[in-house]
Amino acid sequence: MAQGRFKIGLVQMRCTDDARRNQDAAEEGIRRAARAGARVVCLPELYRGPYFCQSEDHANFTRAEPVPGPATKALGALAKKLKIVIVGSVFERRAAGIYHNTAVVLDADGSLAGIYRKMHIPDDPLYYEKFYFAPGDLGFQAIPTRYGKIGTLVCWDQWYPEAARLTALQGALLLVYPTAIGWHPGERKEWGESQIAAWQTMQRSHAIANGLYVIGVNRVGHEGPKGGGLDFWGASFVFDPYGRAVAEAPREKEALLVAEIDPSQVETARQHWPFLRDRRIDAYAPLTRRHLEKE
Amino acid sequence: MAQGRFKIGLVQMRCTDDARRNQDAAEEGIRRAARAGARVVCLPELYRGPYFCQSEDHANFTRAEPVPGPATKALGALAKKLKIVIVGSVFERRAAGIYHNTAVVLDADGSLAGIYRKMHIPDDPLYYEKFYFAPGDLGFQAIPTRYGKIGTLVCWDQWYPEAARLTALQGALLLVYPTAIGWHPGERKEWGESQIAAWQTMQRSHAIANGLYVIGVNRVGHEGPKGGGLDFWGASFVFDPYGRAVAEAPREKEALLVAEIDPSQVETARQHWPFLRDRRIDAYAPLTRRHLEKE
Repeated sequence: MAQGRFKIGLVQMRCTDDARRNQDAAEEGIRRAARAGARVVCLPELYRGPYFCQSEDHANFTRAEPVPGPATKALGALAKKLKIVIVGSVFERRAAGIYHNTAVVLDADGSLAGIYRKMHIPDDPLYYEKFYFAPGDLGFQAIPTRYGKIGTLVCWDQWYPEAARLTALQGALLLVYPTAIGWHPGERKEWGESQIAAWQTMQRSHAIANGLYVIGVNRVGHEGPKGGGLDFWGASFVFDPYGRAVAEAPREKEALLVAEIDPSQVETARQHWPFLRDRRIDAYAPLTRRHLEKE
Repeated sequence: MAQGRFKIGLVQMRCTDDARRNQDAAEEGIRRAARAGARVVCLPELYRGPYFCQSEDHANFTRAEPVPGPATKALGALAKKLKIVIVGSVFERRAAGIYHNTAVVLDADGSLAGIYRKMHIPDDPLYYEKFYFAPGDLGFQAIPTRYGKIGTLVCWDQWYPEAARLTALQGALLLVYPTAIGWHPGERKEWGESQIAAWQTMQRSHAIANGLYVIGVNRVGHEGPKGGGLDFWGASFVFDPYGRAVAEAPREKEALLVAEIDPSQVETARQHWPFLRDRRIDAYAPLTRRHLEKE
């Protein structure tokens, strides 16, 4: 799918408890990105609400919606109007008792090009996602769009080289990670820099190991009680196939990032760093096991 | 295998065409590291000779030796004398026509604890390894020693998250990559910083994704014709399970690096960053395929 350069837009935003307001803010960001020339625009994880996984509260299930549903309908209409691709994120109600953390891709004609249900689900203090989300069962996805195949992954997936690899091998030109990651205020002084550095390192490594663009779109703002809760750090980015930053958003401030993607760089990078050529596929079968130590 | 902290030593050295001289230099480095308290000492890739893979020359096969053989005998005697573990690297002659790029681990009693035959073999301008080395067929190895399980990987393996993962899952406390990596002088101005940054990023990412220590031991010095050849960059390192540098050697100068390894950090890191818990082993089988795009 040879194609020319195009611009990608990232809407780094604050998310409130008001879904309508968040949707309006997201759409305003998308329109601004499109005016700046973006042909693919990406939103943060679960942008329609606060990061409700800070507690295990059954009341939060009312935030879930079907896919297709209100969010994809609104984003689809906007994608069609602006003739752009939109990558969104939805708390998906699939059935009573089955909910997912789902990335949605709207193609430039407004149709739902595809969905990806988050495969790796975290459970960490204030990230109680296992309570809300069933692990994805659609596998890893590279979704064809007017601007090439977009590999969708979500937040915690970013720590898994397996996820990046399996998405890249499906022909993705870029990986997009809608994200909601922040600091615990109490840990921030000691661990803050180390945590954000590790986050960036992992995603740079996916770009390098797979020779493609990697995009992370994070939210910003403090959510939760004062002194507790989470400080979402922003710092959204576009890394090129060599792991270099093409563009980076500031920390902890709303921002619109627009950067150029050059699809020809994917092939060039892979010719110069021919990692895919030498994978030892004959020796990787044990990756499907939990542990390999003799027990 | 609960155990206390210990020191690791890295001998970043220049390698000449004289195997005897290289062996002496390596042994002197090992002795110095042991005097500084190192209980595990690591040597660069193929430290007994120049990086001969810059050309395809049948005469270089005379450099190969059996394992066990002269190198492992010398290193074993020193390991026994100093009561330390040594990780070396040998151009292994396994049989007529079957040669490998092999990491060897000598235990603190002088015995050969295990070997690892480089699984991923590069072939790039001036890195013509496919001419010399058959791909390893021992799989990935975490080799038990007096100071814990040491995961051995070699140079080009460093670009493969699969290799790091499969070694980590065997219970390795640390990954050691004997390495020979450098700049092409003609590319250095434009690409030099990007290349060394990518190299560091990948190995930091293995430390983070797997929650263990990662060690790279590189050679230094220009080898080859003036204006051509390779500038081996040094910059050997010890990264902790959060991807932070515990110690880094200078670029392009011989150096002895001694750093502390705290085995308890492996468990602590994995409890706080529980990536191994959430691997989707049910979905990773396609990692054994070359490509997943519909063709």
